[in-house]
Amino acid sequence: MARQTKQPRPRAERPKGFRDYFGTEVTARAKMLRVIAEIYHRHGFDPLDTSAVETLDALGTYLPDVDRPNAGVFAWQEEEGTWLALRYDMTAPLARVAAQFRNDLPNPYRRFTMGPVWRNEKPGPGRFRQFYQCDADTVGAASMAADAEMCAMLADTLEAVGIPRGDYIVRVNNRKVLNGVMEAAGIGGGDTYDAVLRQIDKFDKVGEAGVRDLLGKGRLDASGAFIDGAGLGEEQIAFVIGFLQASDCDTEGIDATRGTTRTDGVLSSLRTLIGNSKVGAEGIAELETIAELLAAQGYGEDQIVIDTSVVRGLGYYTGPVYEATLTFNITDEQGHRRQFGSIAGGGRYDDLVRRFTGQEVPATGMSIGVDRLLAALQSRGKHNDPAHGPVIVTVMDRNRMADYQAMAATLRRAGIRAEVYLGNPKSFGNQLKYADKRQSPVAIIQGSDEATRGVVQIKDLILGAQIAQNATLKEWRAQPAQREVPLSDLAGAVRALLDRHG
Amino acid sequence: MARQTKQPRPRAERPKGFRDYFGTEVTARAKMLRVIAEIYHRHGFDPLDTSAVETLDALGTYLPDVDRPNAGVFAWQEEEGTWLALRYDMTAPLARVAAQFRNDLPNPYRRFTMGPVWRNEKPGPGRFRQFYQCDADTVGAASMAADAEMCAMLADTLEAVGIPRGDYIVRVNNRKVLNGVMEAAGIGGGDTYDAVLRQIDKFDKVGEAGVRDLLGKGRLDASGAFIDGAGLGEEQIAFVIGFLQASDCDTEGIDATRGTTRTDGVLSSLRTLIGNSKVGAEGIAELETIAELLAAQGYGEDQIVIDTSVVRGLGYYTGPVYEATLTFNITDEQGHRRQFGSIAGGGRYDDLVRRFTGQEVPATGMSIGVDRLLAALQSRGKHNDPAHGPVIVTVMDRNRMADYQAMAATLRRAGIRAEVYLGNPKSFGNQLKYADKRQSPVAIIQGSDEATRGVVQIKDLILGAQIAQNATLKEWRAQPAQREVPLSDLAGAVRALLDRHG
Repeated sequence: MARQTKQPRPRAERPKGFRDYFGTEVTARAKMLRVIAEIYHRHGFDPLDTSAVETLDALGTYLPDVDRPNAGVFAWQEEEGTWLALRYDMTAPLARVAAQFRNDLPNPYRRFTMGPVWRNEKPGPGRFRQFYQCDADTVGAASMAADAEMCAMLADTLEAVGIPRGDYIVRVNNRKVLNGVMEAAGIGGGDTYDAVLRQIDKFDKVGEAGVRDLLGKGRLDASGAFIDGAGLGEEQIAFVIGFLQASDCDTEGIDATRGTTRTDGVLSSLRTLIGNSKVGAEGIAELETIAELLAAQGYGEDQIVIDTSVVRGLGYYTGPVYEATLTFNITDEQGHRRQFGSIAGGGRYDDLVRRFTGQEVPATGMSIGVDRLLAALQSRGKHNDPAHGPVIVTVMDRNRMADYQAMAATLRRAGIRAEVYLGNPKSFGNQLKYADKRQSPVAIIQGSDEATRGVVQIKDLILGAQIAQNATLKEWRAQPAQREVPLSDLAGAVRALLDRHG
Repeated sequence: MARQTKQPRPRAERPKGFRDYFGTEVTARAKMLRVIAEIYHRHGFDPLDTSAVETLDALGTYLPDVDRPNAGVFAWQEEEGTWLALRYDMTAPLARVAAQFRNDLPNPYRRFTMGPVWRNEKPGPGRFRQFYQCDADTVGAASMAADAEMCAMLADTLEAVGIPRGDYIVRVNNRKVLNGVMEAAGIGGGDTYDAVLRQIDKFDKVGEAGVRDLLGKGRLDASGAFIDGAGLGEEQIAFVIGFLQASDCDTEGIDATRGTTRTDGVLSSLRTLIGNSKVGAEGIAELETIAELLAAQGYGEDQIVIDTSVVRGLGYYTGPVYEATLTFNITDEQGHRRQFGSIAGGGRYDDLVRRFTGQEVPATGMSIGVDRLLAALQSRGKHNDPAHGPVIVTVMDRNRMADYQAMAATLRRAGIRAEVYLGNPKSFGNQLKYADKRQSPVAIIQGSDEATRGVVQIKDLILGAQIAQNATLKEWRAQPAQREVPLSDLAGAVRALLDRHG
């Protein structure tokens, strides 16, 4: 390591693509994660916290973004040769744990986990190299009930954190049905399969015409670069497009009253598309089971719906795939109105543990993009605590620091957030500026005169700010936002004032 | 990156020196951190969450363990040349943030943070390469009130998480006093200063005779290797040992009733030792101020005490240093009874931000070793939730999965943790084994007979286990731990049973 390069002054900068979270950003996230953890826990999931570092071997090469093969992991080599790396998702470490502790863990193993993951990508606007994920997985359950439960829990979770019904939709599809359609269309496996998967994952972005080009000869993208197509023939393309549109799902216009009729219609179109494909028929039966289980538990098509346009880019999914989309519109950075979009997703992956043990272990799970969900809640005015800062006890006489500390202690014992100003107390203006920056609701003032009389001044900074915006000089001088109380009434008076401001 | 090495089966192992936390290990830690966050927040500290990765330049070379210069960081080079690294503590990232956002942050900036840090050390028993820290710092406050507040908050925090008064002691010292003593003894700065610091930090471990050797010519350590001494003369050694023993602090025998007399005695011994040293006098005045502030707030010498044997290894401390020790005895891995020992510590570091900006910024802060504190609480029987697992709804008829799911949903709506068994339901024995492994308190059973009659069997697994240990075959057959209730009473009956088991 090149540690000895002497630079007299390092730059006070975080590396590109990383970020810092301050104050209420941290508490809002923690609050949301507590709500999610409570839901997962009540569904019988146990928490798991693996370390950030795994061997590169154990992580494998399941990087999700097939479009950017250069997108990678942060990795380094140990002195004795082993390559270590930061985890890029929560699924690879789970597969390692499930294999390493297979004799000790309950089977099925239901776990949830929350924490940062790292991607060694080129940083860009809104694209970060460390971000939070919150995952739930069931390892060792082949039953479609495990997949249905994931979809149900996703709906429950979104409602619990504050996304009302109608503002989200959980969309379910099945890889086996796609495989069946491709079989019926005579589309080969391997590279072609991967290419088709990659292209139809762009359906939301480039639309039907775009996907037609990408499945065929290719197309020019927005930057003018030519993107090679998957090389399918016209008839094959028709099969794939038919599949993507089988549910023709307008997520904003789902009509719950249509009940299972809609599901029946979708399944019937799919049956035509797959022809005699055995795997396709399996996939349709799986979709049907999931739909039945969810309907029996009272989940409506305004919450969870079959949507054949959902593919999920990851190569490792083997059966059901699901995705939660937020359906309300936001204004993006470029000023365009658009749907908020995908917030969570997952699916069944039966092969991940086999990498280690040679035995196939059925598993299904989902991942919530924590930062995106938090942004969504904030755009809806949720989890935006007004977040007053602490009460500031000002310092009028630096020799009486112990008295001021005692006042702060009194307030804290009454459950009130409080602190003594600890900067240089020479300028009282600086102390009030500090209180302002902290968004303090109240400042406490006690000079020698007040100390002699056993009283304190309580300055209502919220009211003060309101007056400052509207008041005349005369009104300002009257200072109605400040009043004197006996020292013994300090906590009660501050509490009353805070309650008044809510 | 050597990613292309094809290994058919990777080993299902985490890298050496890392660990996984399961179930209640995760929840116990989260619960403890919530309590600590609540205390810090009430004291006016704001949360900060920086990313795990910093530039190596920004981290600098403040690695705390001066004894092992090879101990390092996990670092790697970006394609364009920048070295990145995982943070090894929370102080270096804070210094970076304080410098980067100096125009936006309130001044003083009071922040707390919780999260993992990484050390590229040789893993060993009980020595991990990723561990949790929980820090609070005040940046921009020169006042001793900031240091006194840290000590007070440390005591408050330990009591809040469940360490009773008498089981901990916060010990305070001051580097300036040590510097004054060395000045009076004619001990030079630079390398000698660092060597002395390194040796006296071992006082707790090697005792007075050991430190005498280490300050002088050196000594053989336990492994038989010769450790070079600091090369001081006899008289100089006497000064340093006199300093270490000035408070002669037996942490188990602190007598709160002695009040400030003891502090006065310690300060008076120190005044003799520093002679005419100006920096030494400054340090004594600082210790005195801290003692006064704490006494005025009602903290006794059974909570916080001056202890001149506390040095803290880090070179960057410039004034007050403090350390929290748990004073109760535990039995260690070798079967020896010993004091639990240090759990948290910190001090004043006025130079860290200057690295970036050239301007000196006074700062003081502390770090709690989260994993050690949690281990301490668990050794005292705290934070050991009995932690029943979820109620398990068993599957007697796989075609009636939706009914079982509905039962689990009913239980969850009543606030009861519950799940349907999602493994292969063929063997009922496996389902009960699963419930046992999950430490489930209750299993719900409904076969076709019960379904027809609209009832469910509620099996009390806790009582069942007790009976299994003590019962005769006849008693066992009577199965008093299982009873039948109408399906409509499911949630009520389970709730009553759970309440009975507490």
